[in-house]
Amino acid sequence: MPGGDMAKPLLDHQNADSNSSLAPAAESRTIGILGSGDFARSLSMRLVCSGFKVVVGSRNPKRNASLFPSAVEVTVQADAIKKADIVFVAIFREHYTTLYDLNSELSGKILVDVSNNAEINHHKESNAEYLASLFPACTVVKGFNVISSWTLQSGPRDGNKQVFICCDNQEAKQAVAEIAHALGFTPVDMGALFSAREIENIPLRLLPAWKIPVFLALGLFLCFYTYNFIRQVLHPYIREKKNKFYKIPVEIVNTTLPCVAYVMLSLVYLPGVLAAIFQLYHCTKYRRFPDWLDQWLQHRKQIGLLSFFCAALHAVYSLCLPMRRSHRYLLLNEAVKQVEKKTDAWVEEEVWRMEIYISFGIMALGLLSLLAITSLPSISNSLNWREFSFVQSTLGFVALVISTLHTLTYGWTRAFDENQYKFYLPPTFTLTLLVPCTIILAKLFFHLSCMNQRLQRIRNGWERSRYVNFTLPRASGEFSSGESSSTV
Amino acid sequence: MPGGDMAKPLLDHQNADSNSSLAPAAESRTIGILGSGDFARSLSMRLVCSGFKVVVGSRNPKRNASLFPSAVEVTVQADAIKKADIVFVAIFREHYTTLYDLNSELSGKILVDVSNNAEINHHKESNAEYLASLFPACTVVKGFNVISSWTLQSGPRDGNKQVFICCDNQEAKQAVAEIAHALGFTPVDMGALFSAREIENIPLRLLPAWKIPVFLALGLFLCFYTYNFIRQVLHPYIREKKNKFYKIPVEIVNTTLPCVAYVMLSLVYLPGVLAAIFQLYHCTKYRRFPDWLDQWLQHRKQIGLLSFFCAALHAVYSLCLPMRRSHRYLLLNEAVKQVEKKTDAWVEEEVWRMEIYISFGIMALGLLSLLAITSLPSISNSLNWREFSFVQSTLGFVALVISTLHTLTYGWTRAFDENQYKFYLPPTFTLTLLVPCTIILAKLFFHLSCMNQRLQRIRNGWERSRYVNFTLPRASGEFSSGESSSTV
Amino acid sequence: MPGGDMAKPLLDHQNADSNSSLAPAAESRTIGILGSGDFARSLSMRLVCSGFKVVVGSRNPKRNASLFPSAVEVTVQADAIKKADIVFVAIFREHYTTLYDLNSELSGKILVDVSNNAEINHHKESNAEYLASLFPACTVVKGFNVISSWTLQSGPRDGNKQVFICCDNQEAKQAVAEIAHALGFTPVDMGALFSAREIENIPLRLLPAWKIPVFLALGLFLCFYTYNFIRQVLHPYIREKKNKFYKIPVEIVNTTLPCVAYVMLSLVYLPGVLAAIFQLYHCTKYRRFPDWLDQWLQHRKQIGLLSFFCAALHAVYSLCLPMRRSHRYLLLNEAVKQVEKKTDAWVEEEVWRMEIYISFGIMALGLLSLLAITSLPSISNSLNWREFSFVQSTLGFVALVISTLHTLTYGWTRAFDENQYKFYLPPTFTLTLLVPCTIILAKLFFHLSCMNQRLQRIRNGWERSRYVNFTLPRASGEFSSGESSSTV
Repeated sequence: MPGGDMAKPLLDHQNADSNSSLAPAAESRTIGILGSGDFARSLSMRLVCSGFKVVVGSRNPKRNASLFPSAVEVTVQADAIKKADIVFVAIFREHYTTLYDLNSELSGKILVDVSNNAEINHHKESNAEYLASLFPACTVVKGFNVISSWTLQSGPRDGNKQVFICCDNQEAKQAVAEIAHALGFTPVDMGALFSAREIENIPLRLLPAWKIPVFLALGLFLCFYTYNFIRQVLHPYIREKKNKFYKIPVEIVNTTLPCVAYVMLSLVYLPGVLAAIFQLYHCTKYRRFPDWLDQWLQHRKQIGLLSFFCAALHAVYSLCLPMRRSHRYLLLNEAVKQVEKKTDAWVEEEVWRMEIYISFGIMALGLLSLLAITSLPSISNSLNWREFSFVQSTLGFVALVISTLHTLTYGWTRAFDENQYKFYLPPTFTLTLLVPCTIILAKLFFHLSCMNQRLQRIRNGWERSRYVNFTLPRASGEFSSGESSSTV
Repeated sequence: MPGGDMAKPLLDHQNADSNSSLAPAAESRTIGILGSGDFARSLSMRLVCSGFKVVVGSRNPKRNASLFPSAVEVTVQADAIKKADIVFVAIFREHYTTLYDLNSELSGKILVDVSNNAEINHHKESNAEYLASLFPACTVVKGFNVISSWTLQSGPRDGNKQVFICCDNQEAKQAVAEIAHALGFTPVDMGALFSAREIENIPLRLLPAWKIPVFLALGLFLCFYTYNFIRQVLHPYIREKKNKFYKIPVEIVNTTLPCVAYVMLSLVYLPGVLAAIFQLYHCTKYRRFPDWLDQWLQHRKQIGLLSFFCAALHAVYSLCLPMRRSHRYLLLNEAVKQVEKKTDAWVEEEVWRMEIYISFGIMALGLLSLLAITSLPSISNSLNWREFSFVQSTLGFVALVISTLHTLTYGWTRAFDENQYKFYLPPTFTLTLLVPCTIILAKLFFHLSCMNQRLQRIRNGWERSRYVNFTLPRASGEFSSGESSSTV
Repeated sequence: MPGGDMAKPLLDHQNADSNSSLAPAAESRTIGILGSGDFARSLSMRLVCSGFKVVVGSRNPKRNASLFPSAVEVTVQADAIKKADIVFVAIFREHYTTLYDLNSELSGKILVDVSNNAEINHHKESNAEYLASLFPACTVVKGFNVISSWTLQSGPRDGNKQVFICCDNQEAKQAVAEIAHALGFTPVDMGALFSAREIENIPLRLLPAWKIPVFLALGLFLCFYTYNFIRQVLHPYIREKKNKFYKIPVEIVNTTLPCVAYVMLSLVYLPGVLAAIFQLYHCTKYRRFPDWLDQWLQHRKQIGLLSFFCAALHAVYSLCLPMRRSHRYLLLNEAVKQVEKKTDAWVEEEVWRMEIYISFGIMALGLLSLLAITSLPSISNSLNWREFSFVQSTLGFVALVISTLHTLTYGWTRAFDENQYKFYLPPTFTLTLLVPCTIILAKLFFHLSCMNQRLQRIRNGWERSRYVNFTLPRASGEFSSGESSSTV
């Protein structure tokens, strides 16, 4: 073979090559698989491609052999178990007991439980612990359950690379971790088999970080919608017998959305202020924040994105206003009146009010869209700490200030107009101003007073006590810009 | 040297460090390069940075030495070949024959063909096979052609990490795979040299997954545009001599876009329904879908994104409507008429119709934009299977239902209005409702009837035959949410 | 232990597993850390998780032991240094001198300087060089400063994976590189300790690639805004005493934004034309572009994204126009006039003009949004060179042509209307047309004349001289589509 003599020494380096699909490190190892479903087939394919020998144990090997790649040996279960030290158990939990007959063959083997449940905490004990209790002579390793057949076939992608593994035996865990590594995945050690429940719940999670923020947004929406409905529809109907019910689908939604967006945006920056007060009060940063504050700090990204979503919807709704029939009809009726009055329709103050608040609104939306874009994983990962903090913290605060100006100019003098207090209810915008204005004032107070300096010192590790902790300056910015710096 | 005594043992671990640009594993190896173009220079630079010795063979070494980093040895071609066992051939296919004189020196070497063609299937045989036929005493490996000079210089990025390699000799392939690995790339084994044509076509591909969906969208656009043109422009011109040609650039486009968006959205969910019927009919999931259905299932993402693009354009076009002069002039003329009539312009039914369909339209667009955002690779990769399926399958279907409501409320009673049948052509919206309504009814039927349960069982591996296949529950969701589960 | 006998041989492969958090390669090594701040704690945690033994040297070990994971040994500084060969110095530069007392213990050790500064070039010499000057008997390695405590705790993400390392001693650098690798980071060799300043400046960078484009956009905005203000507000005020100041917040911004967007878009394609002329003039591609042109070529992405941002804002501002009170009042007044005139308001030419330029505007915006989306790292990384070039170069140029048509149809015949020359200033759109039209004409000229062929030859490596360079065809496209191909 030409070139063969030089290729030899290279082969000694092959162990290093485990990340590649060409990796031959595992060449001589045999892996067993019990089961012949989608997962078993995809796993066998990937194992073969990564250089493993694969032997599949099936109850009906002749019938199922055709389902597997030809390089895979399909045989009866007992035979497959004998040939391999590591056996993937790719069958339902309900069928674990069918393996009882193979108890003696399985003894001493490493069983990899790859199963998933249909719902969170479905069974009292995790599938892996159940398997371990059935076969006490085996070492059970939980793993690969987060990987779908599809990912096995198409190769690991960025976010689906992690394989969570747990086992009571360190060496068995290591062996399975290496298989994961050889297949191109990143094994993550989750500790003892006790963690199997947690691992089994991972693929059943449904956007857990979004739950609270979404319910918060829906709750705020309902409250503000009811409030606006009472003021804008119910009040004219009861007091003046005017039918304004046509406002329900668009106009009331459009006065509700900005309230939600604005309050949510302020809720992104409120926990930062609370954390600063907490740190100033306790004069240390080494005290753990209360749980609710910690949770809040960690949900800021989701709250902010929902705020942007509401703001964007508000923009679209607003832009739709002049397109509607109702707008057209009102305009026509006004034109008829105008012709009768024969005066100039122009009201300078109203013109200025609207030009200014539209202008602020667009600016705030533009800034928020920049914040949303830098929240995309592929972009935020390419920013350094200072850049991320500048965009999310500084630009975000500017967006909050501009939103406040948008709200104030929208309100103009209405807060002081008696007629606006329908059923003694103040105009909606006045309600939303409370939190944001507090935050802006608090931030101003921190910046103007000596508090800022003190806060910096605290975040650099300073405490009231004599001893000065050594801390890197980098740590100082970490709290204010999105990550909770509470110590564990 | 301080610290030297402790650094020694660490150096033994170096083989493990092949992913790093500091990896010294390749320290003592010499790689040859023939050619002195951009690619040769970038490759030499990267090889040197990764610890290889590089010797470049040039026809004019004195002149070209200045083009290479100083660590690279630039010499005459024969000399360079002698010094290395692996030689990168970084010259045009047209000049391969100029290497004939070096036949004896090249004998037994591994030649790496990195060349590309100007167009797909330009030559009868691939460049690598051509090179192999010229130098039968060499082992030719195809590879690195998908990597640009720029990527070599700036380092591999996420999507450009894969280096496809093929060769008839396993050891030569392995050796080149290790060089790729040492340079920070992920080698992918593509089999024998026969695959070189396929590899050479990879960098020439132009968005292959988008071709069919884009032509589909353009085709639908043309059909609906013509149909709307006949109804909205030609009909009033012929029947009433009314000049409505000004509708061509904006209004007809704006009635065409939502039709395309809506039909495309329904085409995202139609193949899923067809696949379910196919599986129910054959009572198994182990039967391969027909090719057209498989293709269709794989293009759903692109069809969906084009649908969103059309929907977004439709939104922008709609919002532009009241901005136009034509809108202004029509309004003014109507105002004049209104003044003469002196009646109230308000039409309660029209108002409600428009408020409701605008409202549904915005909701559908908001949902579709969520779907589009979760289609971004960096986001979809961070979702687990259940989350991806929830967003793409459940939210997507809700978007389809809301779009249907948008269309139905837009249509209102027009489908039953004789005047709307211009040239006996029914209103456009009635045509688009066909497929989506069928899909919604089919999905409802599946959910209500016992079909759903049967489908679940089939997707869990059940077949009409007595034998129950072992399959993991995870597989059950895979078909309905974006990936074809047909077995290979 | 069951399975233990088979797990043994696997353990020999462990060195290959350095990418995994289960990697035991480093099992027996001890790493020292001086300091007990956030960074010290996070680093110790990650080191322990990756299998290292960690000994922390603290001035007050009893008090601080509770801050660290229990697996970490916290002791007095001298003791910690004795136990480890590699010592991370996680203390402020200001406190380096407090380590003087430990001079003898530190002798011969590798010190890793992980410190950052508060601002760029704050001190005359880099922290690492300062540390090296204080302890000449140690080998100082700079590194890990770009990694935040947060990244250490949560694990490396895509963009935060690189650890820049520099040191005068190759073996010490290698040892630290391996630690970085074992922790899951990608070590990048930055050369000698002299580079420490550069490394220390990395986390202080604030979007350096955006500075020039942002200032360019702001500058253009100011110029065009002033120009439009003079023409649209000042001129009617001075000449006709008309108060048009209400146009300041929205209307003038909206006539300024498209100018900025359009000029910025043309500035994306201008450097490509200049580079082509440069190459044609010098008849080679091996001549370095002037620095300003090189810089310009590298900032095209940012300029293009800012252009899209302005175009999107312009769209939102335009869509807001009919929503405003001023629009409503003007319409009402016009309606009144119309009633008096009793003529048809319809002006066919105005209608067509507006329908056409709105249509072109939406098309251009749609194309630009495709360009912006493909600029997202996660998408551009998944495109091959030809696809990226097709979208950014071909579609981008089409967007420029359509924007030009949008501008021309917006202008219509106004450029030839004397009344439009307020204060003898030509209408704004005529000013913006200059650069784009030049570019389009130059591109047309290149394509039509034999210049194109010559340019292709030059980009394939051809020079006026007799000798023909070997270059891969791939290189030919590289210049025109986003990367500077100037040789180094």
